[in-house]
Amino acid sequence: MEYQFSSRVQGLKPSAIREIFKYAADPSVISLSAGNPAPDAFPVREIAEISERILSGHPLDVLQYGMTEGYPPLREHLGTYLKKTFGIGGKTDDLLITSGAQQVMDLFSKSVVNEGDAVLCEAPSFLGALNTFRSYGAKLRGVPMEPDGIDLNELERAMKEEKNIRFLYTIPNFQNPTGVTMSLPKRRGVYELAKKYGVMILEDNPYGDLRFAGEDVPAIKSFDTEGLVLYAGTFSKVVAPGIRVGYAVGPGEILQKMVVCKQGEDVHTNLWGQVLCDELMTKYDFAAHLRRLRTVYRRKAGVAAGAMDRYLLPKVTYLPIEGGLFFWCTLPDGTDMQEFIRRGIEHKVCAVPGNAFLTDESEPCQSFRINYTTPADEDLVRGIRLLGEAAGEMIR
Amino acid sequence: MEYQFSSRVQGLKPSAIREIFKYAADPSVISLSAGNPAPDAFPVREIAEISERILSGHPLDVLQYGMTEGYPPLREHLGTYLKKTFGIGGKTDDLLITSGAQQVMDLFSKSVVNEGDAVLCEAPSFLGALNTFRSYGAKLRGVPMEPDGIDLNELERAMKEEKNIRFLYTIPNFQNPTGVTMSLPKRRGVYELAKKYGVMILEDNPYGDLRFAGEDVPAIKSFDTEGLVLYAGTFSKVVAPGIRVGYAVGPGEILQKMVVCKQGEDVHTNLWGQVLCDELMTKYDFAAHLRRLRTVYRRKAGVAAGAMDRYLLPKVTYLPIEGGLFFWCTLPDGTDMQEFIRRGIEHKVCAVPGNAFLTDESEPCQSFRINYTTPADEDLVRGIRLLGEAAGEMIR
Repeated sequence: MEYQFSSRVQGLKPSAIREIFKYAADPSVISLSAGNPAPDAFPVREIAEISERILSGHPLDVLQYGMTEGYPPLREHLGTYLKKTFGIGGKTDDLLITSGAQQVMDLFSKSVVNEGDAVLCEAPSFLGALNTFRSYGAKLRGVPMEPDGIDLNELERAMKEEKNIRFLYTIPNFQNPTGVTMSLPKRRGVYELAKKYGVMILEDNPYGDLRFAGEDVPAIKSFDTEGLVLYAGTFSKVVAPGIRVGYAVGPGEILQKMVVCKQGEDVHTNLWGQVLCDELMTKYDFAAHLRRLRTVYRRKAGVAAGAMDRYLLPKVTYLPIEGGLFFWCTLPDGTDMQEFIRRGIEHKVCAVPGNAFLTDESEPCQSFRINYTTPADEDLVRGIRLLGEAAGEMIR
Repeated sequence: MEYQFSSRVQGLKPSAIREIFKYAADPSVISLSAGNPAPDAFPVREIAEISERILSGHPLDVLQYGMTEGYPPLREHLGTYLKKTFGIGGKTDDLLITSGAQQVMDLFSKSVVNEGDAVLCEAPSFLGALNTFRSYGAKLRGVPMEPDGIDLNELERAMKEEKNIRFLYTIPNFQNPTGVTMSLPKRRGVYELAKKYGVMILEDNPYGDLRFAGEDVPAIKSFDTEGLVLYAGTFSKVVAPGIRVGYAVGPGEILQKMVVCKQGEDVHTNLWGQVLCDELMTKYDFAAHLRRLRTVYRRKAGVAAGAMDRYLLPKVTYLPIEGGLFFWCTLPDGTDMQEFIRRGIEHKVCAVPGNAFLTDESEPCQSFRINYTTPADEDLVRGIRLLGEAAGEMIR
């Protein structure tokens, strides 16, 4: 039979990054291309304890069908925690538990994007979110990044020029892929522009808790008095990604539509993961867990930075980071990025070329992303050394 | 701020069944309106054992990111099992693990339905699937049910009349809501019509393993030589729904698109649930578990049938069932169904009016659905008695 597909999926191309992942699956290749959190930071012992308690004490809480909105105790505790700790969540806001933060991108797009509507995003930005927006027919417009976050002048220009803008997608903390954190003045600037032009903000904060240096910067959502911001969070990086538990905080009116969409997608998020997160937050010292996790990331980022200083500088530069999962490295102008990635794979190391994160993959980009949290230390150092060798062959 | 929604969600209305569930949440009301499997059939001890083993032995298998296609051992074992036991899965077919079978409905619709395309379904049918099809702009056409399954003449008429039919949605075993099982000749007839008119079949089989009487009827997928059938299965009813693990078996070309959509929706299905299902199938006597589960359902269905014989007959009739979760009961012609449901709630019992399962909820329907698996025995009997009292007041 000849199959016919919807126009929305006909447009979805396998991305460059998927091709890269094929090489990364070769066990002889060191992968610096993943987006995985550090496995040494997973609270394995606590998870085992909680799981044992649930399954011997109240198994039906995780086995029977649950509510689409989420496991009620988790919704309550998480809501209180976010409000108290980060000032996130106003009177007209509600909280929805999702199957990872990826589902926030999906449910929000499904609820507000019509074919041809514009979505603004940072350029470069998280490919997984961009692909979701594309899958609902969004026309993406990238706004360049600066070292302290999105370029406000270019953002305003985009808001003036584009029609039917549904939202701005931003990752203010340790952005994927650049690692950049948006300054407080810029966050206020972004919010004021959104208000002026009546554009919603999708604030994605998967890495905020992974800060190992510097000071926390308030979330845009924390000064959202007009109900302009939908905030996406996740337990993937602070507990574990395999459990698939994320959440959205935003205007109740929006979340109601997202709940209807979620009911049609997966009915509800798996309950074992939800109860796990709830008990970790309420029956354990969650703040101490986060401190321990930051120690893991600080040490590991130090190992990566040391190796980059030794093997990449000065030919290849990188942006310093204060948290998150990624370093953004840049080759000298005129170096052929695709050739560099190919040579890296020949040397048995794999990084992601920066153009994969652009709204138009065919645009040139002199940077590449490396993940420092997944490989063991010796692989991390060796991988960076091998990238340095590949660069050395190309740059005189 | 005044929010603007996509046209696809503007059209999604809160359904009648959601209103009913509000009453069902009142603990003084006996709910016969749910679709929950019997909690006494969950393999709680085995789940606790497996979970303990995973978390002490190989925790990263369930905590780190996994593959979008599913946990590889589960895909392999399940594929072999389905092929060997039910003849499901051909050479060009592949298997995708999903977050419940609901996600099969979603990913398939997203992959093949354009705004305005037609989807054929049984009338009445499972509301959750119909709403998903609607959310991608499908125009639904219901085909009447007969005691041995869908009306083939009406199905052919629909196939002739409708344009751009993307698929026929059918639940051949213990259909939701009618409990009807499609006969083998009809299954072959449906397949031949699908072949003749080039229409795909979405075969949803959530209840097939819950047969407690009669003989298994082969799945339509088992005689799919042309790659016409996408088969949806789930562990919700044979293990537990809270774990959210379902699957699709179908043409690889279709599944590839569904994988891209799934990546954008939730990246992958939670791994704890997947490993659980895998170990239940491979390290335990899964066939014995299914036999035990059928014993639970047989007994419970007998309790319900006994109570209906005593309290509902002859004014209210019901279709006998050989498995599944539901009984389909019918009031005499001319009885006001909405009034009956209202009176039921006054009597503190809640059932679902049949019109909720039609493609057009405003059509009249003389039947209602009751679920016999969720309430404890005494509540089940009392609930049926109360429905009988409500009917008695209205029918002389």
